Amino acid sequence: MQRLRERGRTDRDDLYAVLDAGLVCHLGVVIDGTPVVLPTGYGRIDGTLFLHGSSANRALLAADGQEVCVTVTHLDGLVVARAVFHHSMNYRSAVVFGTARLVTGDAERLAALRAVTEQLVPGRWEHARLPTRKELAATAVLSLPLAEASVKIRTGPPKDDPEDYDSDIWAGVLPAALTFGDPLPDPALHAGVGTPGHIRDLAGHARAGDRYV
Amino acid sequence: MQRLRERGRTDRDDLYAVLDAGLVCHLGVVIDGTPVVLPTGYGRIDGTLFLHGSSANRALLAADGQEVCVTVTHLDGLVVARAVFHHSMNYRSAVVFGTARLVTGDAERLAALRAVTEQLVPGRWEHARLPTRKELAATAVLSLPLAEASVKIRTGPPKDDPEDYDSDIWAGVLPAALTFGDPLPDPALHAGVGTPGHIRDLAGHARAGDRYV
Repeated sequence: MQRLRERGRTDRDDLYAVLDAGLVCHLGVVIDGTPVVLPTGYGRIDGTLFLHGSSANRALLAADGQEVCVTVTHLDGLVVARAVFHHSMNYRSAVVFGTARLVTGDAERLAALRAVTEQLVPGRWEHARLPTRKELAATAVLSLPLAEASVKIRTGPPKDDPEDYDSDIWAGVLPAALTFGDPLPDPALHAGVGTPGHIRDLAGHARAGDRYV
Repeated sequence: MQRLRERGRTDRDDLYAVLDAGLVCHLGVVIDGTPVVLPTGYGRIDGTLFLHGSSANRALLAADGQEVCVTVTHLDGLVVARAVFHHSMNYRSAVVFGTARLVTGDAERLAALRAVTEQLVPGRWEHARLPTRKELAATAVLSLPLAEASVKIRTGPPKDDPEDYDSDIWAGVLPAALTFGDPLPDPALHAGVGTPGHIRDLAGHARAGDRYV
């Protein structure tokens, strides 16, 4: 757990890179003394993280004014060592600590929803039907300042004990990435509505970076 | 949050299916009143979940004897609706609550490590160099009974408001899955060591089930 140094640009750049590459975060909040960890969508505007979930997401609602922890993890590979003991994963993770606040202002809520939507599907905001005043009021958005965070990144081959390198046991990395398949049009879609570019751009592509293997 | 009913076989089957399909869980534990959420590997033996991490994983060590929450989430698709408000994700998640215990017995620790290793790479236990007594002693393993859990699964196309179905905005699902690439042999591997079957079996395959789209 460390406070981000403003002069340490690398810390903050790494944090933003890990957060911006993700789709799901895990929000941890204490409810009646018990930790609750729930997955939810999110987006970032500058130094603030915005979490968005259904009103059934009790962690989101309980988090208002509370200390929370938000973690984003990318699995980049299975690290297969010669020794069981040295098996590991290549991953990037960001663990953010801070006091969360439910966003109440309409303008901030709209900006947050835009960030959350664009995080999910870049370019979507310009294509979809925007929220009505009523929908905006029914949306729960949590904000969290990106002031205290820890970023961890593991890359590269396994690290075995010196004597195990003499063995003929296979070792290496099995790269992993979240990958999108071909879009499945809604069965109720009007005939002749083609797949827009911002959807085609995602199909077949891996979201996580192969360069972290 | 619900206690699993033994007679409700479906609940438990769903829970095991979600857990068994995963590679990374998020462990939530309260440390000094603050929730901490850290990613780690895990495995399952019958009705017990075993978590394994480095000794640098402070959440793992702090969890001994404490109430914890362990969450496994699979992202199966981006749900792209006509309205921004109805954007969502297809996913499967398991949220497990209970009191965690550090595993102290050598036999249980070995069995747990086997489960954790096989969860990561099925078939690996038979191929790798097994833990020495010293390595076993240096390994932190946490156990958690699978008694209280919540499983959530969303599948299928977006659900828009009735009036939005008249629009020509594209809607549908972009399927997502964690996919393995070609194995990268350790540069230090002896010449002539071929890729074993249990590694080849994983390459090119998606870990998460396409049937949940």
